[in-house]
Amino acid sequence: MNARSERVAAALGDRPLDLLIENVQLLNVYTQEIYPADIGVSGGVIVFAGPGAWDGPAPAATYDGEGRVATPGLIDTHLHIESSMIGPESFAAAVLPHGTTTVLIDPHEIANVVGLRGVEYMLEASEGLPLRVLVQAPSCVPAVPALETAGADFGAEEIATMLGWDRVVGLAEVMDYIGVIRQQDRMRDILAVSLDRDVVISGHSPLVRGRELAAYLVAGPDSDHESRLRDEMLEKLRLGMYVEGRVASHGESVSKIASVIDEIGCVPPNLIMCTDDVVPEDLLDLGHMDRLVRTCVVAGIEPVGAVRAATLHGAQRLRRRDLGALAPGKVADILLVDDLIAFDVSAVFVGGELVARDGHLVREIPIAPPGDAVCDTVHLRKALTLGDFELRSPGSAPTVGVHALDVGDRGRRTLATLDLPVTDGRLDISEDESLCLVAVLERHGRTGTASLNVVRGAGVTAGAAASTISHDSHNLIVVGRSPVDMLAAAQAVVDAGGGVASALDSEVTAVLALPIAGLMSPEPVPVIVPKLKALNAALRALGITREQPVMAIIGIALPVIPDYGVTDLGLVDVNAQQVISMWVGEGDG
Amino acid sequence: MNARSERVAAALGDRPLDLLIENVQLLNVYTQEIYPADIGVSGGVIVFAGPGAWDGPAPAATYDGEGRVATPGLIDTHLHIESSMIGPESFAAAVLPHGTTTVLIDPHEIANVVGLRGVEYMLEASEGLPLRVLVQAPSCVPAVPALETAGADFGAEEIATMLGWDRVVGLAEVMDYIGVIRQQDRMRDILAVSLDRDVVISGHSPLVRGRELAAYLVAGPDSDHESRLRDEMLEKLRLGMYVEGRVASHGESVSKIASVIDEIGCVPPNLIMCTDDVVPEDLLDLGHMDRLVRTCVVAGIEPVGAVRAATLHGAQRLRRRDLGALAPGKVADILLVDDLIAFDVSAVFVGGELVARDGHLVREIPIAPPGDAVCDTVHLRKALTLGDFELRSPGSAPTVGVHALDVGDRGRRTLATLDLPVTDGRLDISEDESLCLVAVLERHGRTGTASLNVVRGAGVTAGAAASTISHDSHNLIVVGRSPVDMLAAAQAVVDAGGGVASALDSEVTAVLALPIAGLMSPEPVPVIVPKLKALNAALRALGITREQPVMAIIGIALPVIPDYGVTDLGLVDVNAQQVISMWVGEGDG
Repeated sequence: MNARSERVAAALGDRPLDLLIENVQLLNVYTQEIYPADIGVSGGVIVFAGPGAWDGPAPAATYDGEGRVATPGLIDTHLHIESSMIGPESFAAAVLPHGTTTVLIDPHEIANVVGLRGVEYMLEASEGLPLRVLVQAPSCVPAVPALETAGADFGAEEIATMLGWDRVVGLAEVMDYIGVIRQQDRMRDILAVSLDRDVVISGHSPLVRGRELAAYLVAGPDSDHESRLRDEMLEKLRLGMYVEGRVASHGESVSKIASVIDEIGCVPPNLIMCTDDVVPEDLLDLGHMDRLVRTCVVAGIEPVGAVRAATLHGAQRLRRRDLGALAPGKVADILLVDDLIAFDVSAVFVGGELVARDGHLVREIPIAPPGDAVCDTVHLRKALTLGDFELRSPGSAPTVGVHALDVGDRGRRTLATLDLPVTDGRLDISEDESLCLVAVLERHGRTGTASLNVVRGAGVTAGAAASTISHDSHNLIVVGRSPVDMLAAAQAVVDAGGGVASALDSEVTAVLALPIAGLMSPEPVPVIVPKLKALNAALRALGITREQPVMAIIGIALPVIPDYGVTDLGLVDVNAQQVISMWVGEGDG
Repeated sequence: MNARSERVAAALGDRPLDLLIENVQLLNVYTQEIYPADIGVSGGVIVFAGPGAWDGPAPAATYDGEGRVATPGLIDTHLHIESSMIGPESFAAAVLPHGTTTVLIDPHEIANVVGLRGVEYMLEASEGLPLRVLVQAPSCVPAVPALETAGADFGAEEIATMLGWDRVVGLAEVMDYIGVIRQQDRMRDILAVSLDRDVVISGHSPLVRGRELAAYLVAGPDSDHESRLRDEMLEKLRLGMYVEGRVASHGESVSKIASVIDEIGCVPPNLIMCTDDVVPEDLLDLGHMDRLVRTCVVAGIEPVGAVRAATLHGAQRLRRRDLGALAPGKVADILLVDDLIAFDVSAVFVGGELVARDGHLVREIPIAPPGDAVCDTVHLRKALTLGDFELRSPGSAPTVGVHALDVGDRGRRTLATLDLPVTDGRLDISEDESLCLVAVLERHGRTGTASLNVVRGAGVTAGAAASTISHDSHNLIVVGRSPVDMLAAAQAVVDAGGGVASALDSEVTAVLALPIAGLMSPEPVPVIVPKLKALNAALRALGITREQPVMAIIGIALPVIPDYGVTDLGLVDVNAQQVISMWVGEGDG
């Protein structure tokens, strides 16, 4: 008798069930009812789901649901594990107790460092985990070609390669929306191989509306997790786009979605849910997809609708007919929660196996050593010296005019034109506490390119910070007030094989080692969080006032936020898509 | 510029639209709203769908929607074209004006006659039609192995062959539910090749409930169009089964579904819609999927929900992400209706092309000659003689005891045990008008088997009728009161190359030629309907009182309705799954 026939026999009552979860209130994502039921499992699959009690022969094992609400395991349709600074095993250990049982990940960050090898690592490290990890091929590596040096360049060929791998189910957030709607070669070809294979193509289209939005949809991507405005969300839902409600560490969008639901009077079938980026402290303190459901409920979305969006709709989005519902034939990913408002997850079953209870894993998840291919990733062209962080004036005048990147407004970056004093041939920023030097050093062993610029509003008022997390190319970024501290922080990061460090008064004050691609630690969340807290305290001592100080450092190099950015190639005009000179007068005409 | 890039450019307004349908009230199947919009089409695809008016450059052509409601084209998830007695081209011509734009067909009837060649014919004849015809591989050919002789026997190998053909998207209604839940070889293997290919597996599970229903779902089929009871429908919806509301010529189930919707308070996402079997007169007089929507509305289902089930849900069932909605990137299958209650279809666009207006096609659909492979299908072993219809007593007594098939109750067939007079060695039924002789002659040129039995309640009180439509094996069935008329009617059917005929007083009174497999006419509905009406009138003259007299003849041989049937092999005990003797005393012990 094969495995399926055994399950059929168990459903009939001709073989004992492996497990019977008794006495639950089943949340039905189809009919939107909640009613008493038992749930029978055989071979990892639900073979009985009520209504009412199982009346077949005695099962091999039982679990008393004690009248709790049973829901399907929660499905996160878009996230970056790298944002949690931990490897896939530790991530699974962190999110499973919070009811997240399936995730669709975009390994965009590690791909920017080690290319295909990074994606392979994420697949290998997530193989066989109790968390179902599905993967999308990163679509925009690098984010902006020719304006930065990433560790890899993905074209249609690389995408096709990844789409041929097991568990790679689609193309990840297609951020280059201009390239898409203008059908520029790179995005057109990448979309073509994805459309040919009819895979899940995720979008990324903040504030894209009207004809541009229609063009984006016609071109292939059909989801979005970046909607900013309430009316934008409504427009996207109307156009059949999968709109992803998001509860991330950097903000939530479900409150606006709640207002849309109020207006239209229904939870539309194309509303799905994601967490995108969650920092380790939030995983520990606030949760994961359980937090998302709670946030939805607080925002006024009725709980059954919120759960439906986070389960059945997500499964439909992932084209997984075996997930997202408590029904015969579906994989037995089951949560028991005390009530739908608090959404405290009491028990988590994956494939019929109890994996977490009362917020704790009930089995160990072993962590495989990541290996050199993803751990030896800080490859500068030469040893660091103080000179790397000294900004020399091109002329001999006592002052020099510079264009400084102004990051004071987090939504939009501008250029500040300054006249700075020159001391011993070097630019002197000591008089203005709002200024820092920012160095970006290519660290992928490819070009050895490096830039040194002035930045305003970075928040560092003393000392320096350095990081190999530096979106999106993850070169080594060093931000500081003094070349000595910049060198110290940078050297500490290099010595750690990647990570984030701070230095003050010529001393290294904190180091967070992130050996996996310079982005992630193999350690578990409870180990990494105290280290991250120590780092953040040290960063606060440099003057950074943001709630998550590390966020202030790792986003400075982003070349995709209007209107300006800075990369290893220098100062970047985002709108003109070109590198510009920092010196006033050069190329200004 | 490739086709997709052209569509993207049209969406942006950088190229003219092919067509702009102006001034409609767009029914949005996602948000359940209705709002003013224009609909722009490029390359057969919707590239603009409002809200509001198109503000791009002038289109190549416009169509004035005159404020009508625009809905997606209607999707029928299960039907047999053969039931309409016409070929695919004529079927398309008949249903398109009624708003049916996509159908999933089960060519079960023609497959029972000419096997794979029949399925190929349905594919060939439907190729390139404006109606989107998707096909499922018939799962149960013959319906009941060893109890009847069909023209073909499909096992896993034949199923695998068909699943490899273009437009064959799944496995058709899996009727042998006992074979499924008991995992008997034929159904287990047929399901295995279908599950391996992850295709759409349709079910057929009337009155299957509880553990048997769960077992059926675990085994693979996940839809049902045969639910009889309201609570059965609710149970199936709760278990995630796609429940197909049906409005067929033989009855409708949407009234019961309306009651379920009332109870649960929503139109569940797994409610889809089908017509199953529609006779030609109903196509002409009552419509097709438009009639289904009207029937739903009369039953109390709110119109937007009914349309959503008949469009978006159907598309999800068919796994066609490009169908079922009016949104950018979807195929431009669009209906304009005067209002949602009457659901009078004013205009039908398929792939952006206007194909029907005010109930009439606006373009010719050419009919290809079907060819001998499907038209030369009446192959008796020998020429018919009067002796074929004379039922001789096995003994010499003046009376003989027989088991007669009693079809008087249409739901359940029983055996009537009779003592019949014998005249000149032949059974004499002349004294009892409720009795007929029924002959079933294998006509596929395979075995030459034939049976002759007594039937009660067939409704023929004089003369005889003969048909090569005779579910499910479609052998030649002849029902009559007199051997002379039986011979005449049967010979007329043979001479017509298949079809249905009647004879009275030694004269043939009507012939409906159905040369395609003895099941279908290549002629269009308006031509076939008057002929069918003449036939039905002639059948009424034989005494048949049913509204559709032809239905009384073609269902008699069905060996799948409890408790008894009759096939070319003889009298069949459906429950015991064996052929039994008609003679009382033989094998009774």
